[in-house]
Amino acid sequence: TQYAKDHGLTVELSAEDATRSDLEFLTRMFKSGVAAGADRLCPCDTVGVLIPERTSVLYFELKKRIPNIPLSVHCHDDFGLALANSIIALKSGADQAHVTMNGLGERAGNASLEELAVVLKAQYQVDLDIKTELIYETSRLVSRITDFPLQPNKAIVGENAFVHESGMHTHGILANPSTYEPFMPSMIGRTRRIASGKHSGSTGIRASLKEMGIEPNAEQLKEIFLRVKNIGDKGKRVADSDLQAIAEVVMGLPTIRPIKLEEITVVTGSRVTSTASVRLNVNDKILTEAATGVGPVDAAINAIKKAVGIVEPIQLENYSVKAITGGTNAVTEVAVSLSKGDRKSTAAGVNEDIVIASVEAMLSGMNVLMRNYNTNNLKEKS
Amino acid sequence: TQYAKDHGLTVELSAEDATRSDLEFLTRMFKSGVAAGADRLCPCDTVGVLIPERTSVLYFELKKRIPNIPLSVHCHDDFGLALANSIIALKSGADQAHVTMNGLGERAGNASLEELAVVLKAQYQVDLDIKTELIYETSRLVSRITDFPLQPNKAIVGENAFVHESGMHTHGILANPSTYEPFMPSMIGRTRRIASGKHSGSTGIRASLKEMGIEPNAEQLKEIFLRVKNIGDKGKRVADSDLQAIAEVVMGLPTIRPIKLEEITVVTGSRVTSTASVRLNVNDKILTEAATGVGPVDAAINAIKKAVGIVEPIQLENYSVKAITGGTNAVTEVAVSLSKGDRKSTAAGVNEDIVIASVEAMLSGMNVLMRNYNTNNLKEKS
Repeated sequence: TQYAKDHGLTVELSAEDATRSDLEFLTRMFKSGVAAGADRLCPCDTVGVLIPERTSVLYFELKKRIPNIPLSVHCHDDFGLALANSIIALKSGADQAHVTMNGLGERAGNASLEELAVVLKAQYQVDLDIKTELIYETSRLVSRITDFPLQPNKAIVGENAFVHESGMHTHGILANPSTYEPFMPSMIGRTRRIASGKHSGSTGIRASLKEMGIEPNAEQLKEIFLRVKNIGDKGKRVADSDLQAIAEVVMGLPTIRPIKLEEITVVTGSRVTSTASVRLNVNDKILTEAATGVGPVDAAINAIKKAVGIVEPIQLENYSVKAITGGTNAVTEVAVSLSKGDRKSTAAGVNEDIVIASVEAMLSGMNVLMRNYNTNNLKEKS
Repeated sequence: TQYAKDHGLTVELSAEDATRSDLEFLTRMFKSGVAAGADRLCPCDTVGVLIPERTSVLYFELKKRIPNIPLSVHCHDDFGLALANSIIALKSGADQAHVTMNGLGERAGNASLEELAVVLKAQYQVDLDIKTELIYETSRLVSRITDFPLQPNKAIVGENAFVHESGMHTHGILANPSTYEPFMPSMIGRTRRIASGKHSGSTGIRASLKEMGIEPNAEQLKEIFLRVKNIGDKGKRVADSDLQAIAEVVMGLPTIRPIKLEEITVVTGSRVTSTASVRLNVNDKILTEAATGVGPVDAAINAIKKAVGIVEPIQLENYSVKAITGGTNAVTEVAVSLSKGDRKSTAAGVNEDIVIASVEAMLSGMNVLMRNYNTNNLKEKS
């Protein structure tokens, strides 16, 4: 201890597995540490066995016995209680908390920085001097670098935290966000999203269709709503391209797909440059292109981008494949988001062949962006 | 209420967003419900805004005011406190809890069944009459069906909950599991796993090598340990095939790979049956095979299985691809686990081409299983 202090370091004495050790022994150990010069103390909950009741007793006792030394709380999430225990420790005598972004750490990980910061700010009105509006971006960055995905229903930073699908919820959110959001998404640098699916309500569907330039009347909206629900009931998400297709059928809009796939062939392997040839029908013109890529998917998408790029400036903003488990013949789900100027679209492709799933997603999303219901075929609305 | 009861139903009166409503108003509402015949009451924490302190006050007050009616607790996890609030409610007057497997539910989801069941059993000694040993299997099943992945550091059911990599931790676990495990993995139907990586210790590495039939001396083990650490420091997981390769180099074992890839070619597309041809050198014999599949990966793996199957009965137990995000040229990581009789191996392949990544993983894992250091080239140990 003295050596570290002599070299200008702050010394925190951490007692491993202290939350299962005898309190009298722990107190003696900590007091010896303080006598030897320790600046801070930490009774680590190494195996995550603390529960709220014991946390408050432990910190209350330690603070009483060793009052003038800052105490840390270090919780693991084996039972899912790391956050609650950290909060309770802070209220019972702890002066600081050990946390990690996305709750990374051994086994079930440590208390999450993002959860503790947001709870303290939004629920306990503690000003932490943390730029919470950077939390979401930081969380994604850490997730990518560490290769630890976040589950969609993770608190604060999970993909679904501000996604509203249920009809009643969407209706409430559009009237007043606080109805179904505990805090504003902007607090952590996020935006709200209305999704179409099993629990969709007509208000949310109308909002999504309006973005595509499609404005159904009340009766049409009701029918679209029923069909979206029907797909959602089968467990499928409803992407923009699906919603477009449903609306077209219900409203009797011409279901013109500007881009049609005539043929695609891809070759790959260990001693061959992945190469794809594609033949597309774009607005009744046949476009043939070939492209190489780092793999069969990349080659196929490059060929499509090259062919369509001649007529339309569409960007692929995001390409993602859901984790595949089970077998090499498992169904692969590809999701893409595309943009053309300030318009965006999402689309999905589902196939046992990852190349075909990717091609389908890409073409569906491009077709949403290449249709303009207001100015092309339908002049009844501005 | 009366109509439902007349038809033999139990009626639970749930008050949406009750945890933000006025307690006097809520009490009046609940009392009217009871007067109308409600069997149970539930003040839903619809937006997940409860914190432990308020939860205990709310349930204490409600129980005092309406003592003879069962109270439910229904928590959402927007702030990460659904589990803690559910426990505290149960201790403060609630008679039952609403939970979902894997914490599924709107936005950040609801309190997790698996977390509440295990905490109550292991930490509060409450016998719930739940077969906790089926929890892990059930959780995986629900994850697959609902298409909601679990993050590796999820409490109880996350992949890493019983994986030990850190040296000190592995050492402790091998001596006495309770050192670094809050409860036995068998309680929820899991097994423990020692992983090699950044935080590996030599004890864990020696245990993994022993399973492969490789027994290094102290000096060799130290060198293997340093090299595993070095790979781990770059953020990579160390699969069995990597560990094998390192041990061979360090110990001067002949690095014979029974299977070598000579060539693979795959064709896929929209109007073509995915087909792969492969030429392998297996124990210095050239084997050529072709196979079809539902996509390029399936075709390639089928061709390899067909070729190798002639000489070795190796099964592909599990094939998984990490979720891919970012672009069609993103690096794809494939992990496989294989078995041959009662021996198992894990291997990974990393490549921008999903076909090549899959082939590499497959061949690396097969090579681990086809080497037997004890009986083939090395007779010094039995």
